Formats: sequence, C-alpha cells, structure tokens
Amino acid sequence: MKAAVWHGQKDLRVEETELRELKDSEVKVKVAWAGICGSDLHEYEEGPVFVPTEKPDPLTGETTPLTMGHEFAGVVEEVGSEVKDYKPGDRVTINPTLTFGKKSEDLDPYFGFAFIGLSGDGGFAKFANVPEKNVYHLPDPLSLQDGALVEPTAVAVQAVKEAELLFGDTVAVFGAGPIGLLTIDAAKAAGASRIIALDLSKERLEKAKQMGATNVINSGEVNAVEAIKELEPEGVDVSFEVAGVGATFEQAVEVTTPRGTMVVVSIFASPIEWNPFQLTAKGITIKSSLAYTPTSFRQTIDLMARGQLKPQEVITDHIGLNDIVEKGFEELSNNKSQAKILVELSGEN
Amino acid sequence: MKAAVWHGQKDLRVEETELRELKDSEVKVKVAWAGICGSDLHEYEEGPVFVPTEKPDPLTGETTPLTMGHEFAGVVEEVGSEVKDYKPGDRVTINPTLTFGKKSEDLDPYFGFAFIGLSGDGGFAKFANVPEKNVYHLPDPLSLQDGALVEPTAVAVQAVKEAELLFGDTVAVFGAGPIGLLTIDAAKAAGASRIIALDLSKERLEKAKQMGATNVINSGEVNAVEAIKELEPEGVDVSFEVAGVGATFEQAVEVTTPRGTMVVVSIFASPIEWNPFQLTAKGITIKSSLAYTPTSFRQTIDLMARGQLKPQEVITDHIGLNDIVEKGFEELSNNKSQAKILVELSGEN
Repeated sequence: MKAAVWHGQKDLRVEETELRELKDSEVKVKVAWAGICGSDLHEYEEGPVFVPTEKPDPLTGETTPLTMGHEFAGVVEEVGSEVKDYKPGDRVTINPTLTFGKKSEDLDPYFGFAFIGLSGDGGFAKFANVPEKNVYHLPDPLSLQDGALVEPTAVAVQAVKEAELLFGDTVAVFGAGPIGLLTIDAAKAAGASRIIALDLSKERLEKAKQMGATNVINSGEVNAVEAIKELEPEGVDVSFEVAGVGATFEQAVEVTTPRGTMVVVSIFASPIEWNPFQLTAKGITIKSSLAYTPTSFRQTIDLMARGQLKPQEVITDHIGLNDIVEKGFEELSNNKSQAKILVELSGEN
Repeated sequence: MKAAVWHGQKDLRVEETELRELKDSEVKVKVAWAGICGSDLHEYEEGPVFVPTEKPDPLTGETTPLTMGHEFAGVVEEVGSEVKDYKPGDRVTINPTLTFGKKSEDLDPYFGFAFIGLSGDGGFAKFANVPEKNVYHLPDPLSLQDGALVEPTAVAVQAVKEAELLFGDTVAVFGAGPIGLLTIDAAKAAGASRIIALDLSKERLEKAKQMGATNVINSGEVNAVEAIKELEPEGVDVSFEVAGVGATFEQAVEVTTPRGTMVVVSIFASPIEWNPFQLTAKGITIKSSLAYTPTSFRQTIDLMARGQLKPQEVITDHIGLNDIVEKGFEELSNNKSQAKILVELSGEN
C-alpha cells in the first residue's frame, strides 16, 4: 500500500510499504482522513525529535523508517482474534497515545509515552493496525473528517481542563495556530466569558474570530500586554501559551490575574531567558499540558457529537496523499495562514 | 533615640533620630528585639531595591533615609486616641506588611504592598510607631525574642500553604538559609513525612537537621537530582525553591513528582535560562509565595505558642544595635554559617 514514510529530516517519501501483520489485540483500520500536526512538521523540519531512529521505541518496538500520521479516522476493515468491541464496517477514530499503563491516567504519560504515527507506523497510509484500546467508536453525527479532528481537539480540551477553567472565566490565548484555535473552541465550550486571541498573523486572527475569540490582538502591531489590560485591567483568569517563545511566555504570566492560571500548551524548542521574580510578583499558578487522558479523548468525541465543540473551522485545506510533501508539509512551513490540512486516504465520509 | 538608618548602598548608620509623631490610629512600641532579614541585606548590598529613595512610598508616605528593621517585637509604650485593643505594657509583635486593603487578603499584596522597616521607619530603634492593625498580641508562652521570629516564620508558613502540602507529603527544600530553615520547620509542622534539605554549606545542613530535615544533601558534593531520586525514585510531592538561582530552579522542577507542586519562595535577583519544556515533560504545578496574609501571620503566632512551630533554632547570634553593621550585616554577607541574627534593643523578654 502507499504511505508517507519518514526517512529523515526533510525526507518524507510517499512510497509503497507493507502493512505489518495484524496482532490478535489489534484492529485494522481503513484510513479515511488524516491531519498533519505541528509535531509532524517538527519531525520533518528538525527531526528526529520523537521518532526512534536508533533503537526501537520501548512502547511500539518500531524504528524509522516509519509511516507518519497520528490524527486519523476510518472504517474497521478487519479485527484480531481477541478484539471484542469492534467489527468490520465500524466507523472509528484513533487515540494515538501509548503509555505503560502502570499509573492512573492523569499520571501515566509522565512516566513514558509514545505516539502511533511518530513512534511507530501511523495513519498516512491506506491501512493502519491499531491496538483495540486506542480505537474509539465515532458516533453518527460525526463524519470521518470530524474523526480526524478529534486528536488535536483533545489536546485543547486537556489544556482547558489543566487550567481548571471555571464557567465565566476570562481567557487569553497566545498563538492562533491549529492548537491555539482549538483551545479557543474548547475555552468557549467550557463557558469562558471572554476569549482574547493573540498572534502576528492577520489571517490567523480572522480564523480565531471564526472559532470564537471575542477579541483579537495583533502582537506585531500593538503592545500585547497593554492591549489586554485595556480589556481586562486586572488581567485574565486563565492564559494559554501556545506560541512557544520567551516573549509570549512572559506576556502570558504578565496578563494573568493574581491567583489565576497560565497553562503552557506549546512545546518549547529552546530555552528562554526569564526571571522567576515575575511569578513572585504576580502570584499566579503555572501549569502545563501533555497530550490528553483517555477520558479527555472520549469527552472530546462526545462534545463534538453534541455540537458543543466545533473544531471544523480549523481545516484550511484537503489534499491527496501524493501531494503531502509539497501541498502539506512545505505549505504549512511556508504559509502561516494555513491551520489544519487534512490528507485524503479513502476519502469516505 | 538611636536607630539604624539606611542612607544608601553600604551606608547603614547607627545615629540619633527623632521618632515621628504618633498618629491617633497608631501604637508606640518599645522595641525589645529585631531580626536582620535577607531583604535588609539586599538593601544594604545592592539597594535601593524596595526602599523609596526618590518619591514617597504610596503606603507609608516616607522616603529614605529611614530606619530599617521589619522583624520585631516589644512592649506597648503608648497608644493613639483611636487605638482600642492595646494598652501600655502589652507584649506585642509586628506584622510589617502594608497593603491597600481593597481586595481579599490573599489577593491584596499583588495589587501593591509596602513594609514597615523597608518602605518606612521600622524596628532597628528604641521605639517604633505602628498602625494598630499591624500589631498582634504575643501570647504568654512566647518571649519577645520569639516575637521577633514571627515575621520570617510567617513567610515559611505562607510558602507551605501555597504548596497545598498534604499530611504525609514528601518535601525537598533547596537552600537552607533562614527562610529555607523555617520552611523545613513549617513543612514538619504541616505533617510532611520526609523533608530533604539541600545546600552547599555543611553548617547550614547541620542546622537543617536540627530544624527537622530527615535527609540532607550537599549539592556541592553530589548530584542533587540523583541523590533525591535515590530517596524518592518518583520525586517528592512538594519542592521549595529558596536559593534563587537557575540551577536550583531546574533541580526543583526535576525532582517534583508529576502532579506535584513546586513553590518559588526566593526572590530571584536576575533572570535564568530555562526551557519550559521541562514543565511540559514533568506535569507539575509551579507557584510562588509573597510575604503572608494576616491570617497566616496570626496562625504563625498560634502555632508557635502551641509549640508546633519551633523556629528558635534559626537564631545564630544576638548583637547590640551599635554592632549592627559589623557583627550583623557584614557578618551575614561573609559568613554563610550564620542564619538569623537578632539585634537587642531593650532586650526585654
């Protein structure tokens, strides 16, 4: 079958591969749609980051070259002998997170994790074999395109849960890339009364409004902190750092109201210079989020099915697998007005 | 009267001063003992930090030169016409924190604060005039020397409260200076089951043991993170950063167990280089503490009176006011085996 395979930095190849044998505990999924994630882009531009190049990943047992893609949905094609809850024809979405399962779900990822599609073969292919416990039924109202959006939306849901955001809270979201946009959607669904989105790109801020931002601020044009303080003189209750640079980290601390919470959602690629005295003076709580728990993943499906979460606006393009490098990875690298690009595999709905 | 007056960096003078007029809402305290604080030292070595040199502090209305000293206790000498709860002869300790009082007590300091003895005349003098609301009765079991320890002990009590430390939690304290030592005392009083103290000084670690540390680690001799992980393989529930440098900040994050809490207690004098990805990977909460609420101050008195808090071990010397520069400030700058030095004013007990 054809798949998009990571061979090295800037070396993603669409080529013929062999699907590895289906295990008794696995479900074979005929992939319909798969999204390209920021992490995929990191592996392409700066990798290897997560992908196991030297020794097999302890959770997947696999090494590169491997098929990328961890945001995907499709239809069950075949099931292993031990699989109980799925049968051919079932519409499903995939939770790609693997952990050792030795701790409670909120602790588990911090003791080791891997991702289907980063640490082992994933969904940029016609078929994917996935452990039954990573497969979730897709309820009727949701299309298979929606199914491909569950994973990144669950990241945003987890971030909002980490913030312990309360009904009516005011929010600032620093960075309106795909995860920032989905965080806006999740904060709105959680009942935030004001959502201020910040970014350098006019297009992204336009998208942020469509996703539910009540106010947008172009940090390249105005002083971000002053602009937020004009709207919320004592600061916002919750801020999300989804840009991953020193300036936005500091701004996020600064605009959060005393006893409020800032959540680091982005993956910082390099150290920042920061004076912890800022924290002492502000009296806020700093937290972080890492992927999502199985519970959050399931809740994301439910919230999407009920129309409370509407992540669909994040999609900016649909492309074919053959175009994944040029119209997918390269396009995302070069065109900041792009948010989520979905890759069509079977293209079923 | 004689007082230790801040005139400038490295310019603390013991000289004759005039006590300003007693206001109707104030209590005139005959100071018995006053402790030298790390903040005093900062003003001496690197000041002005907090002291108002150019325009009057908005809360005290005073500027330098001013009488330092914000950790003090004594006997009521005289009261203003509006004072209700104090009379001459009462033994009292002083909460030097001033705020605008427009918010709840846990929020108030984050909207502006000042300190008697830093932002206005304090307790390194024979007498001090203090607003009634900053005066607290000292219960019988406590001496006036104990009274001078309430303020720094309240800082440690607040830090432990910020950590939301639970009965039985394991703890690491980075830095065994006065506040680190008092944090050990407070963590023990709060029911920590293990308290690991870290410092570079053998003498301070010896003191840490006396204050209740169950384990001490000399970070100059062994790898601090590895040494803690040997004791607590999954990390401690709560860590306190009381050293104020980049290395200990990072170590404190590293040794805290996922979903645990790190509290920044120290005042960082300069920025650090840090990668917030460490927080993402660890999944801990970072908080801070700033002084203490009036409630925490009162609880500190009660806990000391009941013998649950025993901060007395932190005292390493008693000196006279005339010796405050040489045997006080200079000694604390140069001799890291010193912790808390008390200055004798009336010397009453």
